[in-house]
Amino acid sequence: MHVHAFIEEMERLAPPELAEDFDTEKIGLVVEGRPEISLVCCALDATPYVIKQAVLASADMLVVHHTPLWTPVTAITGRVAGLMRALLSADMNLYVMHTNFDRAQGGVNDALAELLSLKDISPMSTGRIGSCTLSPAEISRRLGGTCRLWGKVKKIRRLALVAGSGFDPALLEEAKILGADTFLSAEMKHSVARTAPLPCIEATHYALEAPAMQRLSLRMGWQYIDDPPLVQKIP
Amino acid sequence: MHVHAFIEEMERLAPPELAEDFDTEKIGLVVEGRPEISLVCCALDATPYVIKQAVLASADMLVVHHTPLWTPVTAITGRVAGLMRALLSADMNLYVMHTNFDRAQGGVNDALAELLSLKDISPMSTGRIGSCTLSPAEISRRLGGTCRLWGKVKKIRRLALVAGSGFDPALLEEAKILGADTFLSAEMKHSVARTAPLPCIEATHYALEAPAMQRLSLRMGWQYIDDPPLVQKIP
Amino acid sequence: MHVHAFIEEMERLAPPELAEDFDTEKIGLVVEGRPEISLVCCALDATPYVIKQAVLASADMLVVHHTPLWTPVTAITGRVAGLMRALLSADMNLYVMHTNFDRAQGGVNDALAELLSLKDISPMSTGRIGSCTLSPAEISRRLGGTCRLWGKVKKIRRLALVAGSGFDPALLEEAKILGADTFLSAEMKHSVARTAPLPCIEATHYALEAPAMQRLSLRMGWQYIDDPPLVQKIP
Amino acid sequence: MHVHAFIEEMERLAPPELAEDFDTEKIGLVVEGRPEISLVCCALDATPYVIKQAVLASADMLVVHHTPLWTPVTAITGRVAGLMRALLSADMNLYVMHTNFDRAQGGVNDALAELLSLKDISPMSTGRIGSCTLSPAEISRRLGGTCRLWGKVKKIRRLALVAGSGFDPALLEEAKILGADTFLSAEMKHSVARTAPLPCIEATHYALEAPAMQRLSLRMGWQYIDDPPLVQKIP
Amino acid sequence: MHVHAFIEEMERLAPPELAEDFDTEKIGLVVEGRPEISLVCCALDATPYVIKQAVLASADMLVVHHTPLWTPVTAITGRVAGLMRALLSADMNLYVMHTNFDRAQGGVNDALAELLSLKDISPMSTGRIGSCTLSPAEISRRLGGTCRLWGKVKKIRRLALVAGSGFDPALLEEAKILGADTFLSAEMKHSVARTAPLPCIEATHYALEAPAMQRLSLRMGWQYIDDPPLVQKIP
Amino acid sequence: MHVHAFIEEMERLAPPELAEDFDTEKIGLVVEGRPEISLVCCALDATPYVIKQAVLASADMLVVHHTPLWTPVTAITGRVAGLMRALLSADMNLYVMHTNFDRAQGGVNDALAELLSLKDISPMSTGRIGSCTLSPAEISRRLGGTCRLWGKVKKIRRLALVAGSGFDPALLEEAKILGADTFLSAEMKHSVARTAPLPCIEATHYALEAPAMQRLSLRMGWQYIDDPPLVQKIP
Repeated sequence: MHVHAFIEEMERLAPPELAEDFDTEKIGLVVEGRPEISLVCCALDATPYVIKQAVLASADMLVVHHTPLWTPVTAITGRVAGLMRALLSADMNLYVMHTNFDRAQGGVNDALAELLSLKDISPMSTGRIGSCTLSPAEISRRLGGTCRLWGKVKKIRRLALVAGSGFDPALLEEAKILGADTFLSAEMKHSVARTAPLPCIEATHYALEAPAMQRLSLRMGWQYIDDPPLVQKIP
Repeated sequence: MHVHAFIEEMERLAPPELAEDFDTEKIGLVVEGRPEISLVCCALDATPYVIKQAVLASADMLVVHHTPLWTPVTAITGRVAGLMRALLSADMNLYVMHTNFDRAQGGVNDALAELLSLKDISPMSTGRIGSCTLSPAEISRRLGGTCRLWGKVKKIRRLALVAGSGFDPALLEEAKILGADTFLSAEMKHSVARTAPLPCIEATHYALEAPAMQRLSLRMGWQYIDDPPLVQKIP
Repeated sequence: MHVHAFIEEMERLAPPELAEDFDTEKIGLVVEGRPEISLVCCALDATPYVIKQAVLASADMLVVHHTPLWTPVTAITGRVAGLMRALLSADMNLYVMHTNFDRAQGGVNDALAELLSLKDISPMSTGRIGSCTLSPAEISRRLGGTCRLWGKVKKIRRLALVAGSGFDPALLEEAKILGADTFLSAEMKHSVARTAPLPCIEATHYALEAPAMQRLSLRMGWQYIDDPPLVQKIP
Repeated sequence: MHVHAFIEEMERLAPPELAEDFDTEKIGLVVEGRPEISLVCCALDATPYVIKQAVLASADMLVVHHTPLWTPVTAITGRVAGLMRALLSADMNLYVMHTNFDRAQGGVNDALAELLSLKDISPMSTGRIGSCTLSPAEISRRLGGTCRLWGKVKKIRRLALVAGSGFDPALLEEAKILGADTFLSAEMKHSVARTAPLPCIEATHYALEAPAMQRLSLRMGWQYIDDPPLVQKIP
Repeated sequence: MHVHAFIEEMERLAPPELAEDFDTEKIGLVVEGRPEISLVCCALDATPYVIKQAVLASADMLVVHHTPLWTPVTAITGRVAGLMRALLSADMNLYVMHTNFDRAQGGVNDALAELLSLKDISPMSTGRIGSCTLSPAEISRRLGGTCRLWGKVKKIRRLALVAGSGFDPALLEEAKILGADTFLSAEMKHSVARTAPLPCIEATHYALEAPAMQRLSLRMGWQYIDDPPLVQKIP
Repeated sequence: MHVHAFIEEMERLAPPELAEDFDTEKIGLVVEGRPEISLVCCALDATPYVIKQAVLASADMLVVHHTPLWTPVTAITGRVAGLMRALLSADMNLYVMHTNFDRAQGGVNDALAELLSLKDISPMSTGRIGSCTLSPAEISRRLGGTCRLWGKVKKIRRLALVAGSGFDPALLEEAKILGADTFLSAEMKHSVARTAPLPCIEATHYALEAPAMQRLSLRMGWQYIDDPPLVQKIP
């Protein structure tokens, strides 16, 4: 398949116009390699390990959620030089789907809702809200086991979830108004926790978003490369 | 003591010129009450609980680290109205020392270094670095028990610490250059963890900063009001 | 009446979407007090005297034209602390209708046109224009007697008026094109007077706007509190 | 005298570096005419009447306080075209001294202080403060008779004055701290009057500034052209 | 013809709404002279020579492509004073049609296409593209003889042209996509030449734009004043 | 030599603090390759041809005047991908010295002055001025033969030169004041030519700057790669 056809297919899955403004020029084909795409790898982040595995697999294309070129550059040095050398030497393409995939149907938030077996799902401005029969402990288990709980949860009935870094006061308020009793996201801040109108489960960013890339790989017949950050509770 | 004299004393403890630019007009006397100061209360945040306890104690002054008026307002409604009503009805003053106290000698970072028994301490652009004989488990215990570990720690010898939200790539780089082997702060972000050049211990913001307010209260003969956020590991 | 219902009623009288952009977040409920509204006071400005009278009247709500929180604040001190203490201690609400009321039907400019018995009234981009049979002396008398005249007036036939500070070169030009022969407003500036294309009557800001608040009070059954600034011609 | 020499002399009288930032490129030689300067006229504003009188007098140079080109232009049309045609056709120069002359020794504020017979004069950040034995009525008389009084004056002892539009809350505060009991300036605004910490005498802008141009003309042997705006109290 | 009627006619020829945003307030009547227009002169630039010739011809109006007041001014001195004095003393009007005339039907780019005998013309976002049977040497001859060639031209079939300074990477790309094999404009830059996707003929700005003013003069019965810059190849 | 030592040497030749502000983060090591530097190539631009020659020569480092990453990027595609692939695959470093080398002693302007045998050289704010005994024809010959002359030159005595794009009205004015009778630079614009106060010789950007890179290569024992743009007069 030509890379143009591949891009068209990706844009059907995650339409660029769904992306947040801050993603302008940071999604889509971020590194251009050979024009013919046959073997595709997929991961959450374009880490050195992920790129190495994709090169070993002779991938023509690597699809990721987070671009390695977030800050605009006028020099290719240090860590970025290492990543770009590995990609460009192998003539491999790098394609990024970020907030457009968060919001797409069947995208990051939908994959998370599915992982947690939510029912009666409705959308929030960002994220999803749905009926949940899992306990916090079971949620934590499905998300790799390093969750923290802010506030007191009795029993979860309606869970609001935002994959990624979603503990935003306006989103919490929206969730409460929409009937949520618990809010799941990553990267809680003290100032937000202090005024949160409902209890919050804090998972890792990776645990919330990687399932979508894994499911996408399965669906598309791509090779998924897992590279979670090493994080653990201190006993 | 007149409030002017009290302010002068506070400015000796935490000189306003040490504050970050973003703190301009957000530190110092943030709510003006009666001019005569006799009983002083102190806390990390001006929460409803803290203000209520200060009112019950008939405090003339409440000293906190985090201002409740961070975002400039043109209306006093909702949560802010509740806080302001409680303070102004009681004619109580509210005084904020924030990044100026972080950086002051004997301030927030120094209190944290002392709590963790650091030796051979030297300053970073923000935070401190020092020799540490504690294990991650003991550090976590002294910080209230909800720490997480990012990356692999063998044995801590030189610990860099930044009270508050200090997981910044530039600070991590500085710590590594200065010889730290482990970095302690709060509010880790995925993108920072992915490229952190040394292992990180993530505590809560409250656990890192409250000790300084508690020690200050002891030293000054003030009444300290503890109000930690409810956070726990999910088993 | 619940405060929400009261706000809805006010928004029918003076729709917020009529307000100038600079009024964003400076109109509407500016201080939140008790939720049940029975007794309402009204004035042009939320001065200490006005608030004191409203407290003595046990008002639940004070409606004013000019917000006392024009400049966004991160501290409640000095004059603002005095006003907020008086309002919040009394649990009184403060509601502001400003440029939205200037432009509303039956609003500030219409009340002024009525006070001066204008006929055949048509709107300007700001203000009104209408046929006038009063002499400058009679206009001045109805406006409290401290008016000044810039330029030469023979006989007024069509009067343009802008309540508040409306001596703007573009407005003067518009008035002339629309057929006005005299322009009434407040706060003349030298640079504007030098090039004014028609003679101007300068009243006080208070004299032009207070009548609208007084008429509104009458219509709504509120208690109007008059507090004109002390201004007089020097003999 | 060559125009360059004339400019040097003016810059000694009113050094450009004293000017406010907003005057950048708006003071000095604003219209360039013939290079040889012999006859000089002077006025407060470059009005059509003033320019016509200067042309009739065959002036080589007209010195004014207020530039007729305040707003930067990319077209010379309407009123500006009239002024520029009159000046350029007559090959007359136009020189502006504005806030640099306000602040210069012997400049606009000093001339006003002298006109009002102030003693023991000390400077403010803008304006002057001095002992005054005149009554408000006598001040008004010396300033052309159209003054208004805001607030209550018992007896003036220390008068603060700011020629031009100087009713600024920060200046009023400064004047009070420096011991003034009355403040004289022009162009009072309602919002300032409401919180003024001392009584204010409001004269016209012209009455406060023209005396300085008149005195300068006398001192330099120039021809002064008076052109006050027509303003009167309405009986 | 009254100047208002003349302006209406000009706005039909070159509608102001076609102009680029940077031309706001820089086109139309730029210097206002006498209201009655009988004799009209026309040129590319309002140079001292052009204005002198127009004055000698007793023109009421001078129409040009480039405004002499590009940078907004607060002073009329030096070169600008010379131009304005000549225009205003003669009571002559100056009218500017710039990017609105570039884009107008029958405007600058169309005149250039006609001069080079293009056929099958279609528009670009700026400029035109058409079939061309001329050699580079013949194009250069028709454009006054000082053209340079960047890159290699075999035979021109489809020529893209942009009158004025049009060597912009985005325009070059557009021309190539639309099938051009050669690009004609003025003021080539090194950085653009380095990556130009098709060969470029560089003429002078004057040679590309003056023909339009000349043709307009013919059509309207105006007097055209030619004033090309002196430029020659060094042998 | 280690790349760090090489960079130190380059910074002595062309101190980064001499660079214009717009060069921030666009000079120095722009692509990072292997750390050991033995063979160095040098050119004016990092074109595909230049990089290919440097790769064939097995260079460890390529030094150029113009960065290929002028506009900050968040994607490596198209032309930039081609350049980066060639550089990174070969593990070659790319070092840029731009306006810092223009201004350095022995830098771009000095090399040009030397090429044209200037004497009694003194600096301008940008560029140099010196006595010149060459004719325009000889200057053009030494600069590759495609120069154009704007205005009339009798005999050059004092030549001002600015390597690169230096036809700036302020620089032309400065040159005239400093006694130049002719100005040499590249990329003349119509608006500048119209008001130039002295005759101008327009060479190509490449012809003015490449000599400095060639001379630097000779001095340092590097391999110089010439890649002039193809430009010619049309007969």
